[in-house]
Amino acid sequence: MSQRSATPVILSGITPSGRLHAGNYFGAMKQHLEYIEKGEAYYFIANYHALTSLRDGKLLEQYTLDVALDYLSLGLDPEKCTFFAQSDVPAVTELAWILGTLCPVSLMEKGVAYKDKVAQGLLPNIGLFTYPILQAADILIYHSDIVPVGADQKQNLEFARDLAQKLNNTFEGEYLKLPEPYIVKDVAIVPGIDGRKMSKSYNNHIFIFDEGKVLKKKVMSIITDATALEDPKNPDTCNVFSLIKLFATPEKLAEIRAAYLAGGYGYGHAKKELLTLFSDYFAEARERRRELEKDSDTVRDILREGGLKARARAEMVMQPIREVTGIIRTH
Amino acid sequence: MSQRSATPVILSGITPSGRLHAGNYFGAMKQHLEYIEKGEAYYFIANYHALTSLRDGKLLEQYTLDVALDYLSLGLDPEKCTFFAQSDVPAVTELAWILGTLCPVSLMEKGVAYKDKVAQGLLPNIGLFTYPILQAADILIYHSDIVPVGADQKQNLEFARDLAQKLNNTFEGEYLKLPEPYIVKDVAIVPGIDGRKMSKSYNNHIFIFDEGKVLKKKVMSIITDATALEDPKNPDTCNVFSLIKLFATPEKLAEIRAAYLAGGYGYGHAKKELLTLFSDYFAEARERRRELEKDSDTVRDILREGGLKARARAEMVMQPIREVTGIIRTH
Repeated sequence: MSQRSATPVILSGITPSGRLHAGNYFGAMKQHLEYIEKGEAYYFIANYHALTSLRDGKLLEQYTLDVALDYLSLGLDPEKCTFFAQSDVPAVTELAWILGTLCPVSLMEKGVAYKDKVAQGLLPNIGLFTYPILQAADILIYHSDIVPVGADQKQNLEFARDLAQKLNNTFEGEYLKLPEPYIVKDVAIVPGIDGRKMSKSYNNHIFIFDEGKVLKKKVMSIITDATALEDPKNPDTCNVFSLIKLFATPEKLAEIRAAYLAGGYGYGHAKKELLTLFSDYFAEARERRRELEKDSDTVRDILREGGLKARARAEMVMQPIREVTGIIRTH
Repeated sequence: MSQRSATPVILSGITPSGRLHAGNYFGAMKQHLEYIEKGEAYYFIANYHALTSLRDGKLLEQYTLDVALDYLSLGLDPEKCTFFAQSDVPAVTELAWILGTLCPVSLMEKGVAYKDKVAQGLLPNIGLFTYPILQAADILIYHSDIVPVGADQKQNLEFARDLAQKLNNTFEGEYLKLPEPYIVKDVAIVPGIDGRKMSKSYNNHIFIFDEGKVLKKKVMSIITDATALEDPKNPDTCNVFSLIKLFATPEKLAEIRAAYLAGGYGYGHAKKELLTLFSDYFAEARERRRELEKDSDTVRDILREGGLKARARAEMVMQPIREVTGIIRTH
């Protein structure tokens, strides 16, 4: 696509699936927070998408507000980006309908994510089936320039580009921008307490905002090998060390690595170190979260502000599309 | 369902597919106009649906305004019903998304209308595939009590009832009303000029607002048998007579029937009679249409008023659904 804004619009969606853990933080959130400095970021909480598998309104609302609280506590500055709930821009479902009329059914049936979810035993509903179309609408409705994605999500972004191109070709104009993927590289691998990738589905996670006894219990239960206290240990195969790496300064890390290699430094020592590092790393965020929790109106107000901004931008993109497709809107 | 409004809400959607013909009028419009007296009618022009097969914005906009003009000219009183464009209530696509998350893919694949359309050679797109879901949203979002449908559309109404029940069961409340079908019986069979059912796809139609030479040429070309002028004729197998039946008073009809049976009354005479009857029948509507055509702002204003009313009712239905599904809306 030709025209790019001087400041690129960066788009990302966040699934509201409950409290976030260290794997979410180092795998995605940290990068999200950094990208805000690189352009005009639109970050939305994907609650319409969550409906495809969650049928508990109280829980979904709580998850939505929780994820907002998490991001805000961890440093998302709502003055520097547009942070909002997907459902505050209902025109995304309108654009999804329009894109759907241009999307062959056969293309949907090839969707990897759909096939995967069905294989995982999720009941195949139309929401799951047409998920990539709503996702495409979410991306395209803000004329996003850049969408940071993991390598596994590249297919969905390609699909969004295809639909945008299809609409532009059908109606002979540049009504939608074709976003560029930004493949997030070097994402930290965050092991869970059992050594597998940290994930709620493995129940091996440590929440970002875990603290006190709960945090201690989890850290202490990280699985290690049986090397004796006095023996040298290999930091590069140790789950505790992998986690320490995420939190420690380079100096601190070098020191601990040396202790591992020298022997006489037990996994218990390493775990205590990790506990302190983890706790300190998120101390400020934890404090901010405590403040924000007391005042859920503030969070709603922030989402409201973001929602209004996002809606205005979406309308700017939708208006010419309604005109060219012949969809009248009298008010 | 338990609760019914004292005045039932009657819902119907009108496809904007260009100028309407006599078959549309006697097959559906006439009844539509009569139902308005029987309850609180919500009539919408289904332009989102039209997008599944029409990719010409100018044409779709024209069709939308044309169908509005047609209904208004033929006696639809916007003070007595809510007449609007589907796209003025964008929350229907939101409800469609929510209903889709509750609808098994397998149910869609059984859709008769989809199979038919694909068999007719229409490119199967997701819009066509999920058409019944948007249709269900259109019906359910106004808490409609009654939906007048032809016998062939009963499946789609059943489907809407199923989705409403599914949402009510899932979220344990009466969030959506289950509408009753009202099967339109005794619908007049309107032959086209070639004797087959009048339809634009057969190109055998006479537009409601045809007049002068165009109307005369169409009426004169109605196919009849080769019975000689002086011989008696069977009115019950004659296309011209079938059409005359729609327009003539009982007295007039008895008179013409007698002339057919007596002989000495040719098809030419019958056609001239039909021409006069047709022309007189729609004379007043034609005059009103000419007036309205001059002033497209009036038509837009009427749709605008209707759209605002419909939107307010839709919001009343959607708000509790957003709450119970956990979809926050901050403004």
